[in-house]
Amino acid sequence: MPKRSLPLAEVYRLLEPGPVVLLATARRGRANVMTMSWHTMMEFEPPLVGCVVSDRNHSYASLRATRECTINIPTADLARAVVGCGNVSGRSVDKFAKFGLTAVASARVAVPRVDECYANLECRIADSRMVAKYGLFVLEVLAAWIDRGARRPRTLHHGGRGVFVVDGEVRRLPSRAK
Amino acid sequence: MPKRSLPLAEVYRLLEPGPVVLLATARRGRANVMTMSWHTMMEFEPPLVGCVVSDRNHSYASLRATRECTINIPTADLARAVVGCGNVSGRSVDKFAKFGLTAVASARVAVPRVDECYANLECRIADSRMVAKYGLFVLEVLAAWIDRGARRPRTLHHGGRGVFVVDGEVRRLPSRAK
Repeated sequence: MPKRSLPLAEVYRLLEPGPVVLLATARRGRANVMTMSWHTMMEFEPPLVGCVVSDRNHSYASLRATRECTINIPTADLARAVVGCGNVSGRSVDKFAKFGLTAVASARVAVPRVDECYANLECRIADSRMVAKYGLFVLEVLAAWIDRGARRPRTLHHGGRGVFVVDGEVRRLPSRAK
Repeated sequence: MPKRSLPLAEVYRLLEPGPVVLLATARRGRANVMTMSWHTMMEFEPPLVGCVVSDRNHSYASLRATRECTINIPTADLARAVVGCGNVSGRSVDKFAKFGLTAVASARVAVPRVDECYANLECRIADSRMVAKYGLFVLEVLAAWIDRGARRPRTLHHGGRGVFVVDGEVRRLPSRAK
């Protein structure tokens, strides 16, 4: 998917609405991807993202060891892969191959981006002090990419137990918020 | 709005999709409410929620001082109040009065809930060690309430600069995630 660089000050606009994302890690030449919804923006610029990754997830050890990852934001047409990546473990399955995802090289980190996702964020751990207690990683976004196409991306939001809500109507209201 | 108690194990289903919420605080007999989108679930049960409140917000000092708040989840019909509460400061305005919101007593905290919101979470600070550096409060949800009506709530998601996305289509997919 042809992408353009996105200014870092715009990153919050992608994550603040709370989409399900695919978190990719790579270690010893092997990339893995997990489905994640527990994330929040923590700072506008440089963008900081807090995300919770359980030590029960295969990605946890890779993220701790390499201190790098990519956050990839899928649209609703990738729902099958999103659910699939959440249902199997990278311990036993090459999820890129199984779910037809394409790993493309990142600019700033050694972890690939997921090409099929409409946006990709290249991240490095900025603070790991809350990892032991909460599994909370504070990530700094080093580079961001977005689909060159002008289509409005419809992302997924996870309401638990396999219930996903797709983005609906857009309302423009005169907010003074950034 | 008639509400029922919601089991704490269900709380993640309300916040994980990433809705805009109204954070209420109270101090010296005066309640305030702010619009917030920077939050994430951190634990299922007891439910822990991480949320970022800037020290530029009037609510910051109340939250630090009283260590209590309520998280109130509005549906899209409250969009005007949601945007309004984000555009003015509690320093100068009684936002409950200005935006027609009703403060109702909570069961476990001294901060009121916002009656018009379809769900309310009564919270107490569980960890404030990340407040000084990031404005990140770790909250424990002590009690949760949800509209007794069976209507499907359509929440708002903030994409920055006054762009709000309303929940659309629901897809049920065979997720093994909790």
